[in-house]
Amino acid sequence: MWPSRPPPVRSRWPSGGGNRPGTWQAWSMAVQINPSILSADFSRLADEAKAVDGADWLHVDVMDNHFVPNLTLGVPVVESLGRATDTPLDCHLMIADPDRWAPQYVEAGAGSVTFHVEAAAAPVRLAREIRAKGARASMALKPATPIEPYEDLLPELDMLLIMTVEPGFGGQSFLDIMLPKIRRTRELIGKHGLELWLQVDGGVSDATIERCAEAGADVFVAGSAVYGADDPARAVRALREKAEATLATAGWACHH
Amino acid sequence: MWPSRPPPVRSRWPSGGGNRPGTWQAWSMAVQINPSILSADFSRLADEAKAVDGADWLHVDVMDNHFVPNLTLGVPVVESLGRATDTPLDCHLMIADPDRWAPQYVEAGAGSVTFHVEAAAAPVRLAREIRAKGARASMALKPATPIEPYEDLLPELDMLLIMTVEPGFGGQSFLDIMLPKIRRTRELIGKHGLELWLQVDGGVSDATIERCAEAGADVFVAGSAVYGADDPARAVRALREKAEATLATAGWACHH
Amino acid sequence: MWPSRPPPVRSRWPSGGGNRPGTWQAWSMAVQINPSILSADFSRLADEAKAVDGADWLHVDVMDNHFVPNLTLGVPVVESLGRATDTPLDCHLMIADPDRWAPQYVEAGAGSVTFHVEAAAAPVRLAREIRAKGARASMALKPATPIEPYEDLLPELDMLLIMTVEPGFGGQSFLDIMLPKIRRTRELIGKHGLELWLQVDGGVSDATIERCAEAGADVFVAGSAVYGADDPARAVRALREKAEATLATAGWACHH
Amino acid sequence: MWPSRPPPVRSRWPSGGGNRPGTWQAWSMAVQINPSILSADFSRLADEAKAVDGADWLHVDVMDNHFVPNLTLGVPVVESLGRATDTPLDCHLMIADPDRWAPQYVEAGAGSVTFHVEAAAAPVRLAREIRAKGARASMALKPATPIEPYEDLLPELDMLLIMTVEPGFGGQSFLDIMLPKIRRTRELIGKHGLELWLQVDGGVSDATIERCAEAGADVFVAGSAVYGADDPARAVRALREKAEATLATAGWACHH
Amino acid sequence: MWPSRPPPVRSRWPSGGGNRPGTWQAWSMAVQINPSILSADFSRLADEAKAVDGADWLHVDVMDNHFVPNLTLGVPVVESLGRATDTPLDCHLMIADPDRWAPQYVEAGAGSVTFHVEAAAAPVRLAREIRAKGARASMALKPATPIEPYEDLLPELDMLLIMTVEPGFGGQSFLDIMLPKIRRTRELIGKHGLELWLQVDGGVSDATIERCAEAGADVFVAGSAVYGADDPARAVRALREKAEATLATAGWACHH
Amino acid sequence: MWPSRPPPVRSRWPSGGGNRPGTWQAWSMAVQINPSILSADFSRLADEAKAVDGADWLHVDVMDNHFVPNLTLGVPVVESLGRATDTPLDCHLMIADPDRWAPQYVEAGAGSVTFHVEAAAAPVRLAREIRAKGARASMALKPATPIEPYEDLLPELDMLLIMTVEPGFGGQSFLDIMLPKIRRTRELIGKHGLELWLQVDGGVSDATIERCAEAGADVFVAGSAVYGADDPARAVRALREKAEATLATAGWACHH
Repeated sequence: MWPSRPPPVRSRWPSGGGNRPGTWQAWSMAVQINPSILSADFSRLADEAKAVDGADWLHVDVMDNHFVPNLTLGVPVVESLGRATDTPLDCHLMIADPDRWAPQYVEAGAGSVTFHVEAAAAPVRLAREIRAKGARASMALKPATPIEPYEDLLPELDMLLIMTVEPGFGGQSFLDIMLPKIRRTRELIGKHGLELWLQVDGGVSDATIERCAEAGADVFVAGSAVYGADDPARAVRALREKAEATLATAGWACHH
Repeated sequence: MWPSRPPPVRSRWPSGGGNRPGTWQAWSMAVQINPSILSADFSRLADEAKAVDGADWLHVDVMDNHFVPNLTLGVPVVESLGRATDTPLDCHLMIADPDRWAPQYVEAGAGSVTFHVEAAAAPVRLAREIRAKGARASMALKPATPIEPYEDLLPELDMLLIMTVEPGFGGQSFLDIMLPKIRRTRELIGKHGLELWLQVDGGVSDATIERCAEAGADVFVAGSAVYGADDPARAVRALREKAEATLATAGWACHH
Repeated sequence: MWPSRPPPVRSRWPSGGGNRPGTWQAWSMAVQINPSILSADFSRLADEAKAVDGADWLHVDVMDNHFVPNLTLGVPVVESLGRATDTPLDCHLMIADPDRWAPQYVEAGAGSVTFHVEAAAAPVRLAREIRAKGARASMALKPATPIEPYEDLLPELDMLLIMTVEPGFGGQSFLDIMLPKIRRTRELIGKHGLELWLQVDGGVSDATIERCAEAGADVFVAGSAVYGADDPARAVRALREKAEATLATAGWACHH
Repeated sequence: MWPSRPPPVRSRWPSGGGNRPGTWQAWSMAVQINPSILSADFSRLADEAKAVDGADWLHVDVMDNHFVPNLTLGVPVVESLGRATDTPLDCHLMIADPDRWAPQYVEAGAGSVTFHVEAAAAPVRLAREIRAKGARASMALKPATPIEPYEDLLPELDMLLIMTVEPGFGGQSFLDIMLPKIRRTRELIGKHGLELWLQVDGGVSDATIERCAEAGADVFVAGSAVYGADDPARAVRALREKAEATLATAGWACHH
Repeated sequence: MWPSRPPPVRSRWPSGGGNRPGTWQAWSMAVQINPSILSADFSRLADEAKAVDGADWLHVDVMDNHFVPNLTLGVPVVESLGRATDTPLDCHLMIADPDRWAPQYVEAGAGSVTFHVEAAAAPVRLAREIRAKGARASMALKPATPIEPYEDLLPELDMLLIMTVEPGFGGQSFLDIMLPKIRRTRELIGKHGLELWLQVDGGVSDATIERCAEAGADVFVAGSAVYGADDPARAVRALREKAEATLATAGWACHH
Repeated sequence: MWPSRPPPVRSRWPSGGGNRPGTWQAWSMAVQINPSILSADFSRLADEAKAVDGADWLHVDVMDNHFVPNLTLGVPVVESLGRATDTPLDCHLMIADPDRWAPQYVEAGAGSVTFHVEAAAAPVRLAREIRAKGARASMALKPATPIEPYEDLLPELDMLLIMTVEPGFGGQSFLDIMLPKIRRTRELIGKHGLELWLQVDGGVSDATIERCAEAGADVFVAGSAVYGADDPARAVRALREKAEATLATAGWACHH
């Protein structure tokens, strides 16, 4: 059985190339809570990382003014952050030309690198390169991007990210119309017997996490729901409990 | 006489629109040392800002993967940093389409915003907008960009930045071939009786700052020369002393 | 029952946000004929608008030399036209980056704004913004773009536009191979119980409008078929009669 | 002597290729007033063209959302307008890739086509193509673009356009800092003994036209100063009188 | 029955427009082997073409540094090559904006022109233009691009190309995960009764060609498997034999 | 004295970094004739290289459909050609983003790599990288690009290329208006005491080479003037004789 939280040492995760049907034993879905530093205080990132010590990963939102209309941070910040915390980094690249830039984030210390399928010129090759460099390879879908066309690619990936808001814009609330896509994605994962993690990002909070878990998500990015709370670590625990309770009854595990 | 260091409160600087020939009294050049946070630890920016407390400005290198082949940080980091320090922020935008994005940096708290003339579609209008929003407007020139074509625009600006390395690439040393351009720029400023600051950025250190000052620069961006030192604050003082000593004998002040 | 022609006052249409399953009563499809001013005399647009007084909407083809290889007209022309006519404006944006520009067309007076899904970075957010500003939100598909991937998005839209020629090129004839896509789109609309209008644009004429209506379209853009006729208003009536006769027997209404 | 207003028939202007030093007889500068239809009512362009019947040219502002952040009109509108008026059309292309698109404006009926040197990949070749197709070739400079680098190209051109606002943005006033560039441009024209027209565009009005003429401009684009007046035709005459009076005393003619 | 190898004279192939269901008689799939000159010696292309004299087509990989991160060759090389050999040229355009450039390859002598659906703005119109100029029109899909969305377009095409590596990068091996897409594509072709050729490109060799043929491919691009062999012509024959043997037993022909 | 023709072994040329004033002894200008393979038969490049055996360099025109509207050839062709001939390769990169791609041409065997200043983001850094990899670094100027702004950069370069037609378009004749720029460039080179070669490209032939040499060029690219001749090698000799005769009397050598 897969432990409910991956250990912080990267080499202990299922690494690149391991996600082949049949080579793993049976497993069950495990909730992971990844606070997004986009809602943290950028002048004290080391402290902010400590404040969510029970988190599974720190979610790092990389934006470049081109793939999305905002600019946040890039490789040098990831490098500094990686040296400052033991929590592994989950880098979500909302950038143009990830084929060119994504490998640098592995070298900067990211344990998981997510590129957008809408931006990647060669997703299969990119996923293989990320894995070969030692990180988990993940692919993100914007709200208007379907999952079905990418069914053939699933064995190349360690995680799928379903955006539940349009990436790169502020002030949006959770998109309920994405729930069917989450569900269909989980079903595709089960159909192929893969161990893909299924992440949701955007408007995930106390009020929406159960709907996401019920639809089949197991990795949850939370921004203001964590860093906007008085006690971020407690907020992480509360989110985890809600998600685990939902997942326990959702019946997804029996797909495998 | 202009004080040797501008006070940290933005409203006390010569603000937008003030840089017209004849409306100011005589002044002399004053050395300013602006440590670049690109060489700091991004996980502890608030502390790093304190570590250079005698600095005139914090220099913030904004890169977007498009104007230059690196991605550093953007508006959210500037906002956090501005709340964390009293040292004014000098934002150097190495980004495409500054006409669209630069005003956000003023709103985020920058006291000076520098755009690249090679990237700006409408530099006159942009400089006016930056000033109208309450910050100092500055224009940067890459090493291959001459100053002469922009002589007509000087009255619209509060500072010129002459790059002394190619922006956006690591591992470069100071370009001595830029010294004649610094000198010609200072002469143009004097010819028009303007109070433009003249900033240099790239490879500025103990070993090169005197050449820059001698050629006419008065605002010095220093990265590893400050943050790579055991005592950053002392490095700032040492750089200032060298530059002031040089400037005192360079004879530029008598142009005015 | 939905009136066969929407009144010219925008506030009387089903406005943004109203297109949710279950919140509307039963309705039937109603033919609408939208003459395209691309075939009109641009030096007398006010007169040309009057010449098709029985039309439901004026269809305004906005092209920018980038999304399509032609440049037609933009916001200032829409503003002038909106002041000159009571017929509501149906703006079809064949432009890059509609996320940035589309809201301006609502402000310029458009009652319906159509963006291309191939060009939009954030279609869900854009549709919501168009509705929030008070216009109908519509999404267009080029001939090579399928409808199925966008099933999840349908509740966010007031109209779908199926292109029946490649947009932006002259001299093309109606693409019969698009008829199955029209039919599948109408079926998806019915499956979800939505009140989406289904527009066709490109080569629609006396000779082709029946095939479109039979396949499930109810809003018809007609260019030269209207403005190339001796009597444009009569051409509108003739097209409407043909479409209504077809639609009456097509059996689509019973889906609802 | 060159007539003060070119006749409306295009073939009577000095056509492409004629602008070679020495092949023309002595001439003097002649004021031309070109109302900009950007300030007219786009729903009645034929009428608006008639309303300024004494104008020398109609100035047509073509914008594409890419070279400038606005979209106005393109080839189809130029075609309609050309059929509706005898006043020749002076098309100012504020568009990307004029090398590709500019020739279409000649075919659409423009008597003069102005491309921006900042956008053209091959200005010499483009100017020759415009002339070869039978129109006057003109090159525009944005406010931050100097004239000196293009001295070698002057013999290829029939007109230079000095922008006196940043093109493509609304709400700007005349840039006095452009007057030295106008003057230097006129001097370069004189130095080479060329018959280039020198156009100014942006904020030209009753209040600024004399400064432009004094600096050496002889073709004046006026937008709201004409179409915002109660009597546009009278506004044209008033502007012409002011410019002619200034030019008569400016002493430019004696350069030739 | 369709001959196993098309004759080298272009006019004898099923030309543009002929691929309509019902207008052709029954046929069976025929193996074609197309050596890729990307693996040949570019300084002796005429000789290299002769060295594979039994080949059906020469496959020409056109790359532009933009659609893929490599630059190979373009129209002038195709023209020279076409004059040097009787083997027809199968041009695979891995370039941006094929709508603009593809027709030139027909004029340069290509008998088949393949554009990428990911790059084409107007694939239906482009396919028609290629056919109208006298070549076969073909559409390529990158590994992450599904076939299902393009089912409506199949009648417009003479060939589909399924990439079995990411185009434009070196050092990749055959992607087995593409085999289901090849199979589904062949089934769609059969479902519509079309005579589309189905090409595979990328890592096709002695070791992989049988899997491709078994999945339904009938046109095989081979690079190093041919030009890396001691006897390229023999390598072509060996590949053909393997593919024909597989195809004979794969049962695809009975679909028609 | 510099030999009139550089030997074909690259290591014997003045290599990267050597072009510093004062470190070389006195020299005189030496004519070099570089046939352009753009006019050769691309199917027999090895033979075509032999056909001009007396040439100093083979000029290789690299175009990418983006910097210029044509696509010719790239790295793989340069590699093949370099293995096929002892004549050194002079690669003229008419491509976008040379900062990224130019170093590959050195690795592919080019002895001289020319990038366009209009395309390079960081020309100083790029020139240094080309030299560091062992080739001569050269910078090209399109017809509308002046030399004066780049005076500070001359010490970083081994050659300047003045285009005498607009690059990338066919059917153009030599631009006489470029002669003053050639002359001013030669004067700048002399003023700084540099040993820069000065190349001209475009329309250079029997009829124009003397004007170029008289203006100060010493390296001549010739396309159809060589490969269009019955005897290319004799055409090279004839061009060389004309240029040497002119240069002998032009008096440029006395600048040094």
